[in-house]
Amino acid sequence: MKASKTKERILQTSLALFNEKGERAVTTNHIASELGISPGNLYYHYRNKQEVIRALFDQYRQETVDVLNMPEGRDLTSSDKIQYFQSLSKQLWSYRFLHRDIHHLIEANPEFQKLYPIFASQVMKQGQKIYQGFVDVGLMEMTPPEIEALIINLWIVLTNWSNFLYMSGHLKDDKDSEHLVWQALRQMVFLEGPYLRGESRETYEQLLGNMGGSNLFAVLSNSPTKIADSD
Amino acid sequence: MKASKTKERILQTSLALFNEKGERAVTTNHIASELGISPGNLYYHYRNKQEVIRALFDQYRQETVDVLNMPEGRDLTSSDKIQYFQSLSKQLWSYRFLHRDIHHLIEANPEFQKLYPIFASQVMKQGQKIYQGFVDVGLMEMTPPEIEALIINLWIVLTNWSNFLYMSGHLKDDKDSEHLVWQALRQMVFLEGPYLRGESRETYEQLLGNMGGSNLFAVLSNSPTKIADSD
Repeated sequence: MKASKTKERILQTSLALFNEKGERAVTTNHIASELGISPGNLYYHYRNKQEVIRALFDQYRQETVDVLNMPEGRDLTSSDKIQYFQSLSKQLWSYRFLHRDIHHLIEANPEFQKLYPIFASQVMKQGQKIYQGFVDVGLMEMTPPEIEALIINLWIVLTNWSNFLYMSGHLKDDKDSEHLVWQALRQMVFLEGPYLRGESRETYEQLLGNMGGSNLFAVLSNSPTKIADSD
Repeated sequence: MKASKTKERILQTSLALFNEKGERAVTTNHIASELGISPGNLYYHYRNKQEVIRALFDQYRQETVDVLNMPEGRDLTSSDKIQYFQSLSKQLWSYRFLHRDIHHLIEANPEFQKLYPIFASQVMKQGQKIYQGFVDVGLMEMTPPEIEALIINLWIVLTNWSNFLYMSGHLKDDKDSEHLVWQALRQMVFLEGPYLRGESRETYEQLLGNMGGSNLFAVLSNSPTKIADSD
């Protein structure tokens, strides 16, 4: 069933508000008010906030699976690698409320406790195929255990990136956060870097030369390192 | 001030209960009952559960900083590398309740919002010195940006490891979880692996030969990959 135009607008507006203010700070009344519709009109399409979140999660999952498709009828190229990187980072940024609050969402919604592992499994298995594809055409050199470990590390780093930024004190609110979220791309590049070969290797070495040090570390180096004792 | 014997016993018992049942499921009454002391006796030493958690966090922080000390008066060796690995994994396991619930702890306790970034900074800066030490003696080969990126990736993977296991459906409760938590060691080995040289490289290649595939991936491969649509 194709979502109606109002349904689409509700999702878009909810996503923007959740990202900007955090999911917990936004009620269905906020969403209706922002859209200039009555709460009753909103409830006609989504019975409650959990239904809106579920619909956004479905959208996120579908888009993520789509960007991880393998090209049909041709081998993977080093442009595909850049494309995967950019698409995944864009997904991280566009649905950052999901990553920022995933622990809370899973606790608040038993359905997510079932959906999330399935989604994780789906993405990681597809990642395995993609990396094997890059190995097959000589753009990377990895053993199967190295592929597995890389995918698990990538998954943990990417899905926890926003949380890391908040918890390590780099991110205070949503303003000016975009460049920090995009730094996830930098971490991905370094995770893959050692395994790149051929044309991918050349691109990596150019990137390394241009990137220099990380802003994150510069900030860390300026923060205090002593904690007062509680006794 | 040296903690009294009762204080020490309260911390040990609380840590065991928090790890086994999760911090939220354990009250100060549970702790007192497990110890066979009155709640009043417990409150004499710690006014509430938050004070117990804060004392455990201090202990965790101090122990972690201690295991990351550099040897005095000699260069780092490849045995030090193994030692750091084992000590950090032991810390992850011994204080797993902190990692499992750190998002909740930080939300519930404004003090942690200040302490945690300082702790993160302290550990990551010390990690930078250690890795530079390994580079200096030729056991690793990394540029400073590669060291920074590796430390950030290690931090995120290790501190989110237990959470990853729960959220991806690998861990249901605390029973039989020890071997899964120790798999964090495996992820660390793969993160560092590409940069190892000399004697460290030889140890890594022996490890790779012995390790084979990951249990985690085998489990993922058996889980369902279809999610029912909500519409």
